[in-house]
Amino acid sequence: MKINVKQCAEILLKQDNILILTHAHPDGDTLGSGFALCRALMRLGKICSVVNADEIPKKYDYLYEDIAPIRFKQDYVVAVDVATTNLLGSLEGEYHIDMCIDHHSTNTEYADYLLLEDVPAACQLMYKVITELGVDIDKEIANCLYTGLTTDTGCFRYASTTADTYRTAAQLIDCGADNGRINRVMFENKTKTYARLERLALDSMRFYENERVAVITITQEMYKLTGSNEQETEAIAPLTRQIEGVEIGITIREKPDGTSKASIRTFETVNAAQLAKMFGGGGHPQAAACRFDCGVREAREKLVEKCGELLNDRNNMCE
Amino acid sequence: MKINVKQCAEILLKQDNILILTHAHPDGDTLGSGFALCRALMRLGKICSVVNADEIPKKYDYLYEDIAPIRFKQDYVVAVDVATTNLLGSLEGEYHIDMCIDHHSTNTEYADYLLLEDVPAACQLMYKVITELGVDIDKEIANCLYTGLTTDTGCFRYASTTADTYRTAAQLIDCGADNGRINRVMFENKTKTYARLERLALDSMRFYENERVAVITITQEMYKLTGSNEQETEAIAPLTRQIEGVEIGITIREKPDGTSKASIRTFETVNAAQLAKMFGGGGHPQAAACRFDCGVREAREKLVEKCGELLNDRNNMCE
Repeated sequence: MKINVKQCAEILLKQDNILILTHAHPDGDTLGSGFALCRALMRLGKICSVVNADEIPKKYDYLYEDIAPIRFKQDYVVAVDVATTNLLGSLEGEYHIDMCIDHHSTNTEYADYLLLEDVPAACQLMYKVITELGVDIDKEIANCLYTGLTTDTGCFRYASTTADTYRTAAQLIDCGADNGRINRVMFENKTKTYARLERLALDSMRFYENERVAVITITQEMYKLTGSNEQETEAIAPLTRQIEGVEIGITIREKPDGTSKASIRTFETVNAAQLAKMFGGGGHPQAAACRFDCGVREAREKLVEKCGELLNDRNNMCE
Repeated sequence: MKINVKQCAEILLKQDNILILTHAHPDGDTLGSGFALCRALMRLGKICSVVNADEIPKKYDYLYEDIAPIRFKQDYVVAVDVATTNLLGSLEGEYHIDMCIDHHSTNTEYADYLLLEDVPAACQLMYKVITELGVDIDKEIANCLYTGLTTDTGCFRYASTTADTYRTAAQLIDCGADNGRINRVMFENKTKTYARLERLALDSMRFYENERVAVITITQEMYKLTGSNEQETEAIAPLTRQIEGVEIGITIREKPDGTSKASIRTFETVNAAQLAKMFGGGGHPQAAACRFDCGVREAREKLVEKCGELLNDRNNMCE
C-alpha cells in the first residue's frame, strides 16, 4: 500500500524495536538514509538498528561510529533505498518487510507500506520524513543525509538534481553538515591501488564508429598488477562518457572465471538499456549492464558491432 | 570606496553606456557574472557590453550568443571578478574603472567604488545585485549565474561552498537554469587532446616523501604528441591532490623557452603559498604557483627538497 510522508511518520511513531535494512553493496544514499532514520528514531527514545548484507566501506565510518551496537528482537522492519528484495543480497527472505522508503520508480512494492517519491536521492525524501517525525536535525543526522544527497547526484552534477535537492543541501549545511569534508572523502580520495588501475584502464581505452564509441577493458591481470579489485571499478565506467564526441561509453571487466561483465553509459541520444537488453542485460536509459560468457575482447567485438547498428539506425531514422 | 549591494544597484541604475570588463583568460565565473549583469542592465533599457582581453573558450558560447554585438562610447566602466588590474591582461590601463564587483578578499581597491563580499563565486554576489536592481531573473540570466556558481565551486564540491551557494543555485534552477546541461559541458566534456594529455600526465606522476608528495611533469614534447596545449593543463593540477595520503600535489609544466611553472595544491595541513613563496611565487593557502628558470626535472628536484623540509618541520612542531 502506498503511503505519503505524513502517514509514514505516523506509522513509525507508533512502532518500536525497529530494524532498518539497506541494500547490499551499500552506498552513500542507502547508508545515509538508513543511519539518518536510525538516529532520528533513537532521538525519539526508540530501540533501533541498521543491518546490511555486506561490509560497509571504511569511508562511511563517520555515519555510525558513535552509535553503540545493540541486539534486540525486531518488531518492525523498514527497508530504505531498496527497489527490489534481491537487492538485499544475503538478507533476502530473512525478514518480513513492513515498510519501504525509496526513490526508485522501479520499486516492486514488496513491502506492506511503500513511501515512494521520484527524487534524485533517498536522503532527499528521508529529510522530509525526519522533519515530519518532529525531530530537529542535528549535525550527525545532517551529515548522514548530506552524504546520500551528494553521492547519488555525483556531487549535485547529474541532470536529475532538482532545485529541492539544492535547497535540502542548504538546510542540512545550516544544521551543521560538514559538506567540505564529506565531498573530499567521497570525491577526492582515490586509493593508490585505484589510481594505478585507472591509469591502466585509460591506457586500454579504444575508440570505434568514428570515435562515437569508447571502450575500456579491465582484466584480472590488471587487478594483480595494481593491487586493486573489482570493487574499485565503479568509478571507471563514467570516464568513458566524459570524452568529447563519445555517445556510448563501455567498460568491460573480466570476471575471475574468464567471463565478462559490461557497464554501458550513454547520453540522451542513445538508450543504454536497449543495448544491454540485446545481450540479456538491462538498466536505466543512460546506465545499463550485461554479462557475457566469453572473454573481454570477444565481448568488446560483439558490443561494438551492436553499437554500430544502433548509431546507424538512429542516423537512418533522422534522415 | 567600499559600497554595499544596495548602493551598488543605486549607482548602476543612474548610469548608461556601461562597459563591463572581465579578467583575462576568462573563466565561468567572470563571464557568468559579466554577462548576467549585462543582460540585467539591457533589460532595464541600458546600452551595455562585455569586453575581455582574450578569446572566450567555445564552451561558454551559450552565455552570450543571442546578444547582438554593439559599439558605443562608454560612460561607465565596471570590472567583475577582477582582483587586481593586471588580471585585465592587455586591457590593463585602457579604461578608468568606475566600479568593481568582486569576491576576492585580496582585491586591491583600484576602482572608485568596490562592492566586495567574501563568497565562493562572484555570481553569488551578482545574484544579489541583479535582484536589488529589480530585474526578474530570466532563464538566460539564470544560466549565466549558475555557470559561475558551479565552475568556481568545482560543482559545489569545495569546502568554501556555503548554504547560501546552494540556496542561490536552487533559486536559479527555479528561474530556469539548465543545471544538467551546464554541468555536463563544464565537467563531463574532455576534448580528445586533453584526454590524451591526461593519460601522459598520469603516467608521469612520481611520489616522494613516503608518498605524501605527488608530482606530475608536463613537457612541450607531450603537447606535441597529444595535439594538446598549455590551456588544457588547468584540469590536471587537481588530479595530484586526489590520491589517498598525498598532502602536496605539484604539477610542473615546461614553457616553450625551456623554463618551467609549477602549480601547487594542498589540503589544510600544508600552506601551498608558503611553499610557492620560497621560489618567488604566491597564491592561496591551498592553491599556489611559482616559476623556475630551469627545466621541469630540476624544478621538481628543488620543489621536492623543500616539500621534505616543510613536512618535517610540521612533524617536529607537533612533537
